[in-house]
Amino acid sequence: MPADLKAHDGQTFEQEARDAVYRAIFSRRDVRSHFVPAPLEDAVLARLIMAAHHAPSVGYMQPWNFIVIRDAERRRQVRELFVAARAQEAGNMAEDKQALYARLRLEGICESALNLCITCDRTRAAGSPLGRWHNPQMDIYSTVCAVQNFWLAARAENVGVGWVSILDTDALKQLLAIPEHVVPVAYLCVGRVSAFASRPDLESKGWARRLSLPDLIASETFDGAGESKLKSCIEELAVNGRAGLRASS
Amino acid sequence: MPADLKAHDGQTFEQEARDAVYRAIFSRRDVRSHFVPAPLEDAVLARLIMAAHHAPSVGYMQPWNFIVIRDAERRRQVRELFVAARAQEAGNMAEDKQALYARLRLEGICESALNLCITCDRTRAAGSPLGRWHNPQMDIYSTVCAVQNFWLAARAENVGVGWVSILDTDALKQLLAIPEHVVPVAYLCVGRVSAFASRPDLESKGWARRLSLPDLIASETFDGAGESKLKSCIEELAVNGRAGLRASS
Repeated sequence: MPADLKAHDGQTFEQEARDAVYRAIFSRRDVRSHFVPAPLEDAVLARLIMAAHHAPSVGYMQPWNFIVIRDAERRRQVRELFVAARAQEAGNMAEDKQALYARLRLEGICESALNLCITCDRTRAAGSPLGRWHNPQMDIYSTVCAVQNFWLAARAENVGVGWVSILDTDALKQLLAIPEHVVPVAYLCVGRVSAFASRPDLESKGWARRLSLPDLIASETFDGAGESKLKSCIEELAVNGRAGLRASS
Repeated sequence: MPADLKAHDGQTFEQEARDAVYRAIFSRRDVRSHFVPAPLEDAVLARLIMAAHHAPSVGYMQPWNFIVIRDAERRRQVRELFVAARAQEAGNMAEDKQALYARLRLEGICESALNLCITCDRTRAAGSPLGRWHNPQMDIYSTVCAVQNFWLAARAENVGVGWVSILDTDALKQLLAIPEHVVPVAYLCVGRVSAFASRPDLESKGWARRLSLPDLIASETFDGAGESKLKSCIEELAVNGRAGLRASS
């Protein structure tokens, strides 16, 4: 730790605070089946949206908007979009996956306390595309960072979040009156939950396994061998149950 | 708080742990000018990459790879790509922004301890695109969530991260031997820093201001009026210096 940093009061994270951040990261879940019928306090939702608003954004453009959806009839209509989209998607799964796919719970649109659509306004900094001239999709990436801030803050508030991506975007835009130049990046189900699962649903149901992290690390180039010390450290973390990281049990 | 959730040991975040998560979110910075010439321990980098690996991913596909770039000559070459891209981008700024743009510090490629490229393999779950049949870009979004996990964990480790988006993607792919089907989503500068700025650089330099959050919230539809209670809660947070959120000072 450089002495300079220590000199700045409140800047340095100590062990306990660091552990809390890792705990949010490791125990965050994509919640589908554990929502309970309890309201979500506006004061809590305000903090979550404030966390989203403090995401990094390319050129500080803050391209996001937040649509809060509470109306039961509108949510029923969104769920209809999901059901139709799921039927289409099901036909495109590998055959050996179709039976399992049909059994998976993939949304909590109507049972959660509320829904939230986080959008990206692609025209917000049109005149000065700092950081977006070569990579115009960076505004969308910024919006995804806001989603992840929201999700982690929610975990720290003991609030569940599930991201529903099985939706036809054009139909969703129509239902929420989203204009042409705005992209609905994430449709989230948000609410109090009975529990956070200890593992991702798609892992416990046998859909897929967590990949071995050392296999995903390369040195200098995409296929570059090396970084053996880094990989050893990662293997040690895995063996020791992510010691020092205070993962969920 | 539902009684069910309380019954699960270690699941509930108490006030102090919650505050730590908000502190990471509010004091995270896109670091350009505060890197110090100190190495980053492999054990720390391992934890950060582990945090990234625990991001949500559509269909649990975990589409990410991590390329660690330490070589000074390769970094010099990446910086040359940045310099060329910046010159191109500069010409596309609104005229009244050009002088300020030229003065902004936008990368720490050579001064940071190391660079990290986080990529998205678009073919990783080709047979069973759960959650991606309608929205094939969801794998990219998952990778951005991994970037944001990395970034917040880094803040909690007192490590600075800067995202360099002013790069020609094809040239970067060539330099890092990234294959056709893989997208370099984020090119990050990572390392120890002398301080974390209290505000985003682009705010303190006068490039842009933080938008008023209540203006970005709508009810039921994109232009829907309402949510006055939620907006009041947000205004209260702003007035009270995000009381209860323990933001950086």
